[in-house]
Amino acid sequence: MKRIFFTPGPSQLYPTVKKHIAQALKEDIPSISHRGSVYQELSKKLKDGLRRLLDIPETHKIYFLSSGTEAMERVIENVVQTSSLHFVNGAFAERFFKAAEELKKKPQKYEVPLGEGFHFNFRHSGKRTERAHPESLDVGDAGQARLAKASAERASMTGFDISAIPSDTELLCFTQNETSTGVAIPMEDIYQIKKQHPEKLIALDIVSSAPYVTIDFSKIDITFFSVQKGFGLPAGLGVIIVSPQAFEKTKLLSEKGLNIGSYHNFLSLEQSSLKEQTPETPNVLDMYLLQKVVEDMLVVGIEKIRKETEEKASILYDFFEKTKNKPFVKDTRFRSQTVILVQTLDGSKVVIEKLKEKGFIVGSGYGELKDTQIRIANFPAITKKDVESLLEIF
Amino acid sequence: MKRIFFTPGPSQLYPTVKKHIAQALKEDIPSISHRGSVYQELSKKLKDGLRRLLDIPETHKIYFLSSGTEAMERVIENVVQTSSLHFVNGAFAERFFKAAEELKKKPQKYEVPLGEGFHFNFRHSGKRTERAHPESLDVGDAGQARLAKASAERASMTGFDISAIPSDTELLCFTQNETSTGVAIPMEDIYQIKKQHPEKLIALDIVSSAPYVTIDFSKIDITFFSVQKGFGLPAGLGVIIVSPQAFEKTKLLSEKGLNIGSYHNFLSLEQSSLKEQTPETPNVLDMYLLQKVVEDMLVVGIEKIRKETEEKASILYDFFEKTKNKPFVKDTRFRSQTVILVQTLDGSKVVIEKLKEKGFIVGSGYGELKDTQIRIANFPAITKKDVESLLEIF
Repeated sequence: MKRIFFTPGPSQLYPTVKKHIAQALKEDIPSISHRGSVYQELSKKLKDGLRRLLDIPETHKIYFLSSGTEAMERVIENVVQTSSLHFVNGAFAERFFKAAEELKKKPQKYEVPLGEGFHFNFRHSGKRTERAHPESLDVGDAGQARLAKASAERASMTGFDISAIPSDTELLCFTQNETSTGVAIPMEDIYQIKKQHPEKLIALDIVSSAPYVTIDFSKIDITFFSVQKGFGLPAGLGVIIVSPQAFEKTKLLSEKGLNIGSYHNFLSLEQSSLKEQTPETPNVLDMYLLQKVVEDMLVVGIEKIRKETEEKASILYDFFEKTKNKPFVKDTRFRSQTVILVQTLDGSKVVIEKLKEKGFIVGSGYGELKDTQIRIANFPAITKKDVESLLEIF
Repeated sequence: MKRIFFTPGPSQLYPTVKKHIAQALKEDIPSISHRGSVYQELSKKLKDGLRRLLDIPETHKIYFLSSGTEAMERVIENVVQTSSLHFVNGAFAERFFKAAEELKKKPQKYEVPLGEGFHFNFRHSGKRTERAHPESLDVGDAGQARLAKASAERASMTGFDISAIPSDTELLCFTQNETSTGVAIPMEDIYQIKKQHPEKLIALDIVSSAPYVTIDFSKIDITFFSVQKGFGLPAGLGVIIVSPQAFEKTKLLSEKGLNIGSYHNFLSLEQSSLKEQTPETPNVLDMYLLQKVVEDMLVVGIEKIRKETEEKASILYDFFEKTKNKPFVKDTRFRSQTVILVQTLDGSKVVIEKLKEKGFIVGSGYGELKDTQIRIANFPAITKKDVESLLEIF
């Protein structure tokens, strides 16, 4: 039976992938040298394509890693000496925070309940959001307790007061599209924070929102994603985009003699990248496929892909608003357009099995939400017709 | 034109790979969840297959990484607090040493000239090898200078005296098959060193000798390889095998509060591995292909694969002994059976081009040897007939 994967990654292959794999095998792509000219051309074309598709400026560097999870580690290693602040809206934001702890930094986190978004209080801009939820700022280090207390008190009144960001925080980490909860952070909120804290670096996880999410890279320092979600490719490749400000920070940490990692530190990646290479033998096949899919998406047009994503998301959210199985994220401002979470009335298992019988594979809820929720990916590989066919079964 | 890749990685695909890729696509392998039961079965079958093929005991853990280069980083992070000693016989051994430096350890290295092997002096065993070459023990740290001087003096008389290994060395790193020079280290020498220094951990890079090299895992603590060489697969997957002694060291470092890395530290890998999972979304397609190729190799039989490798290596070395282009490694005891380096009389470029015209792709020399040498991979994907066809052109 032909199956359609609405799972939030790995997911449905982009429609052209099988064709590109056949062509890759014809061209001996898995056998070519990663130090040779055929590979170098591929690397250059891939970076050029990503720049055009996502509007990445020439000032920003593009490096290849092996996963989004690796990217979290490399971000912390390369731009944090001591303190990062993590906005935690689910398991992947928590994973980012944990990476900083494991790497022996002193990270702090600001956490909201599962399914809820961040209400930022931009005092200097005159904009003020109402506080809707219990929120807290946790600190891993006793020395930071005073700041934490002050900021938690302010947060409990008005949402997260961005003027309460500790002065020694070097990096602010945002999971723009939290795959575990289907909560998104509006990019405007993040730009506003950067505007008021221009000296702080911003790291942005767009693992499950690329290429849908539109980013003004001049306001973001590090952005990363992997390819098995929105790009509809086999897993095993991550992409990280680094601003000049972030790269300077890496140089500074290196000059201070700090541990910034080995082969995948940004300096090592840059040295190889200048030769259109990578320090290690990379996943050449996946890079080839990404290059091809990026070209295919450029032919379709990124604006069309984004518009269709929103249309499909509307169909899904509108449908579930009217059924017994409701969207998990209540506040429409924070609803992900690419990963739709649905609270099931009769448990996730029965729904998943029923869909599976018809060839529709959806994800279960994540972690503690496994048995009560389903997750429906709305990536570019999924057509409007696929969505409609899926909803017919409900 | 059909091409045959004699390049030392990426290399010729194992003959069954294309068929397995087609089957993987039929089974939707790139789309399945890395947290689901189909993946878990694949993971289990892959580990079981590797155990049978390479005779890995149940005591040893098998984890999946993204490359051999990553493995070097993880080895240093996970089992070295301060001091590793690296036996450097080429660029990849040097890369391992450099990883330790970059990770802010205090590594030492013992280096031999390119193309030469290690002459160990096993004083306690009564076995003594003659010193044939200038050798040196370099230390990155001034505080180690005295030990270095003493050991260098001893080395200059009798080869490397293994009783000169500093007492505070925690890990001994060997590049069993140096892909850049075609120099191999006989496993018996390494076992002998472990026997005399049972408290020290041994790390073994078999990136370009697996699955050919036979290893007694009870005498080796960490072994690693990647799949784009002897297994003839697309690049993007590494395998690391960890002994109980090494794993205990990781626990100790973790308990001491040291930085052992984040998602790919051995404790995190173990936690996931117990569930037949990985911390991140892995290269599932490559794992599937590795599982299939391991099964194929089990059907052929590892003894047959090893015997054929040695036969093909003999044909190659014997041939070049009789031509103007001579084997680079003079001492037959140190000649790699899987990566054969040939010193070209007229430069590598002309030879490489001539072979390429006929569809035979060989590697150039590595680094400074690029223009004078060629490298011929003798992996299981290459048949005796392929070797004979290649040699006909010379």
